[in-house]
Amino acid sequence: MFRTAELGRAVPKEDYHEQVPLLRAELLEIQQRLRMEAAFPVIVVFGGVDGAGKSETINLLHEWMDTRWLMTRAYGEPSDEMRDRPEYWRFWRDLPPAGRIGLFLSCWYSRPMLERVYERSSEADLDEALDRVFTFEKALADDGALIVKFWMHLGKKAQKERLEALQKDPLTRWRVTETDWNHWHLYDRFIGAAERLITRTSTGHAPWHIVEGFDKRYRSLTVGITLRNAIVRHFEEMRLRRDLAAARDGRCILGTDEEGAEPSPADAVPAETRIGGTVLRMPRITILSRLDTTLSVSKSDYKRTLEKYQGKLNRRCRRAKELGVSTILVFEGWDAAGKGGAVRRVTAALDARDFQVIPVASPTDEEQAHHYLWRFWRQLSRAGRVTIFDRSWYGRVLVERVEGFASEQEWRRAYAEINDFEDQLVGHGIVLCKFWLHITKDEQLKRFKAREKIAYKRWKLTDEDWRNRERWDQYEAAVNDMVERTSTSIAPWTLVEANDKRFARIKVLKTIRDAVEAGIARTGEPYVAADKTGKPSLESTA
Amino acid sequence: MFRTAELGRAVPKEDYHEQVPLLRAELLEIQQRLRMEAAFPVIVVFGGVDGAGKSETINLLHEWMDTRWLMTRAYGEPSDEMRDRPEYWRFWRDLPPAGRIGLFLSCWYSRPMLERVYERSSEADLDEALDRVFTFEKALADDGALIVKFWMHLGKKAQKERLEALQKDPLTRWRVTETDWNHWHLYDRFIGAAERLITRTSTGHAPWHIVEGFDKRYRSLTVGITLRNAIVRHFEEMRLRRDLAAARDGRCILGTDEEGAEPSPADAVPAETRIGGTVLRMPRITILSRLDTTLSVSKSDYKRTLEKYQGKLNRRCRRAKELGVSTILVFEGWDAAGKGGAVRRVTAALDARDFQVIPVASPTDEEQAHHYLWRFWRQLSRAGRVTIFDRSWYGRVLVERVEGFASEQEWRRAYAEINDFEDQLVGHGIVLCKFWLHITKDEQLKRFKAREKIAYKRWKLTDEDWRNRERWDQYEAAVNDMVERTSTSIAPWTLVEANDKRFARIKVLKTIRDAVEAGIARTGEPYVAADKTGKPSLESTA
Repeated sequence: MFRTAELGRAVPKEDYHEQVPLLRAELLEIQQRLRMEAAFPVIVVFGGVDGAGKSETINLLHEWMDTRWLMTRAYGEPSDEMRDRPEYWRFWRDLPPAGRIGLFLSCWYSRPMLERVYERSSEADLDEALDRVFTFEKALADDGALIVKFWMHLGKKAQKERLEALQKDPLTRWRVTETDWNHWHLYDRFIGAAERLITRTSTGHAPWHIVEGFDKRYRSLTVGITLRNAIVRHFEEMRLRRDLAAARDGRCILGTDEEGAEPSPADAVPAETRIGGTVLRMPRITILSRLDTTLSVSKSDYKRTLEKYQGKLNRRCRRAKELGVSTILVFEGWDAAGKGGAVRRVTAALDARDFQVIPVASPTDEEQAHHYLWRFWRQLSRAGRVTIFDRSWYGRVLVERVEGFASEQEWRRAYAEINDFEDQLVGHGIVLCKFWLHITKDEQLKRFKAREKIAYKRWKLTDEDWRNRERWDQYEAAVNDMVERTSTSIAPWTLVEANDKRFARIKVLKTIRDAVEAGIARTGEPYVAADKTGKPSLESTA
Repeated sequence: MFRTAELGRAVPKEDYHEQVPLLRAELLEIQQRLRMEAAFPVIVVFGGVDGAGKSETINLLHEWMDTRWLMTRAYGEPSDEMRDRPEYWRFWRDLPPAGRIGLFLSCWYSRPMLERVYERSSEADLDEALDRVFTFEKALADDGALIVKFWMHLGKKAQKERLEALQKDPLTRWRVTETDWNHWHLYDRFIGAAERLITRTSTGHAPWHIVEGFDKRYRSLTVGITLRNAIVRHFEEMRLRRDLAAARDGRCILGTDEEGAEPSPADAVPAETRIGGTVLRMPRITILSRLDTTLSVSKSDYKRTLEKYQGKLNRRCRRAKELGVSTILVFEGWDAAGKGGAVRRVTAALDARDFQVIPVASPTDEEQAHHYLWRFWRQLSRAGRVTIFDRSWYGRVLVERVEGFASEQEWRRAYAEINDFEDQLVGHGIVLCKFWLHITKDEQLKRFKAREKIAYKRWKLTDEDWRNRERWDQYEAAVNDMVERTSTSIAPWTLVEANDKRFARIKVLKTIRDAVEAGIARTGEPYVAADKTGKPSLESTA
């Protein structure tokens, strides 16, 4: 979930200084309009990792905007006055009225997070607290409030480097406290809880925007532009709501009112934001652009390594079958990235009775008459089997999104639906691996051309492949969003550098082996089965 | 929550036989239309108390409708096949395709309920399971499915009588098993869990309809008519959605899409349903009509009793103050029902420093610029005080609903918002009492006329009072809905028979005394404080 916020995005100094005046003027104007129309309040929430620039950004917004119409609230330990009343009293009290912007730091997310990180509460407690947050934000949003939430992120290593740098400088040493280092040591736990928090509370009505906090200029512009865009869009949305209410002409039919299905429209800040006649530009970097596509395995190593991993995989899958641990493999990737080849290297290691490959093409009539996940639910195999999806439910947020087969609302809400689906799979003890096979655009062209030449491969290349290729950038953005929204700690994406097919296949096999091994470990059973004589039936150091 | 489903509603035999043929013809026609258009699937869920007619109703629907296009599914212990897969696999597998109706008995609600009732799971576990249900139903509804849920209810006494009657008859004795009696003994626990279940899963997209199961004819017609209306409405809603999508003209602005805020549109079955040229009629009985307004207290008893209870209340409130237990009293009722008089009898028992009366009139400008609950949140007092609301947040679902000051969506979602608000109050240890003072329409007229005559009371009678009186039936329906949706086990409504003012005042005082006593008990501290000499400072048998 946070991997897309560790790409080291930065904005050069001169770009920054060129863009800020424009953004400031725009923000001031918007603030003015908010105040005059007083149509809705704006609630801005800042959360995230220490040192990712939460308070710096709030200070900067005060510098940029008219501070008289900004309210900033931060919460520490509750006072006597607060303890006398229900927890949310303090938040209700501080809500901005229509026309004002409230900036909230360490607010309703703070206590649930900290209690979980310090292990003073269980996961169920965290969920319950997040339910309350959900209800609170929903009530406000239903009433017309605009809620914008920024999650400022910094990688573990970057955070450490930051602390060390501060400590080295005598002028900034005071800023590093013991608590800071304590927090750093709890980083992984914090991120685990944060992932849950974001999954559960990033809703259509109150989305989280994950902001890479590494570069000050990048994060400042990102927050400023995102906030600006959200307010502009909300003005438009409120107008639209009024128009629709009129269009409905009293035909208020309740119960199915296009409910806020779609999860967070928390897109990465757009590469271009048009303000009047000028354009604000932000670096467009996706997670795919950070992959090292030069990685390769030599031909001589390949055969040996392949056989080794296939053997390991075979033994692990046999044991998994005995224990009733199922495996589901998802293969997605660019056309001609080598999905088929990788799948064959996996199945070669398995017994044909124990696996099934599901090629996913257009849905059948019957499938079309159901929810789009229905066709995948029905393919779930019995315990202990391996099911391989060659393309999958991710079609919803890839091809269906890009080609417009799914409406924006449909593909947006699919992220949450998919996370829930996979949560059920993993919760049932199923081993789930998801692969995106990545090749560069040049490599794809080379492979397309090769296919045209080789007779027995020509069928694999269709006009559609060429059309898809034209939309490379759109697909790349969709992949980035997909990884951001659906790469969770329980079901992470494995991005496979696949310019070199051999490298890709080995990486896939290794990943599956590790995952199946971990799945066996979760059962609490030994990895090696004892045969009837009581002796291990498989070598123990496979 | 279930009190409005224990009113003994029944349909006379001749009415039933007159209406059924009409309803059947209509249901068959709708089924045909569903099948031809195949626009969406219909998912009907049956839950509720044993013996309230769940399976009888399903059988009847099969009799009434074309059974070839109905799918019925009931779930017992999971099979091997099911256990091999995540729990929801079996439900996904059984979903009806677009154009079909699926009837589900003991489905996704069954396991969470039973585990909670048998105390094999905690409340947090139940909530987590209900979150999953929510997500599941939401995904289906977002995809266009119509979900209609019937909760068949039978009071504890009625259920016992039913079992005894079955047992007496040699022909039906076999139908009563030990499990039935076990369930009956767990009735209260079952109802507690059911209340939580309904509160958490009665949503705009999948509302629960609470059906009084006492009379077979009443419940059958109720289910039939409700199902018919829901399908007709859904056809219209789907058409509207298409129109709106067109009207939006690509202006798909995301994030705040009139999210399914409003809770269950699960109105009681309407008194009249128009089908073509004919009308189906159902008895219109509200919970208010069942109150005994002849209850009274004689003048001679009154003074003594009043003083006794005022004394008791005074002592309890003093102790509550010591312990920091706050009390919130809500007074609602018909105009001239005697709210002011009742409030004065309460405040007479309290120390002026410890209570505050909040008369609720139109909101101020500042209040208007916030969420409607904001003005009540800000009135929460410090620990140990008594806050009395003369009219309250319930205005949203009473006067604002009836007079049209709040839109239908606004007042509908207010039920859930109010339940959440009160949950936070009670969760914080606050004692909450809610009173509806009920007088008959005749009694009100008498009091209005009296007010006209007495000079010092004339100011109390306004034109608005006369206007409200004209909308008596609408207000009565609103009160019935309010009690159904917001009378929860943690924050029940007390309906006060107030034709006799003396009776009403005593009932109010008694109720508050009991509630404060219970609030003190929850702190775990003794009811009686020890003074410095270690002796009780208040009499112990107050």
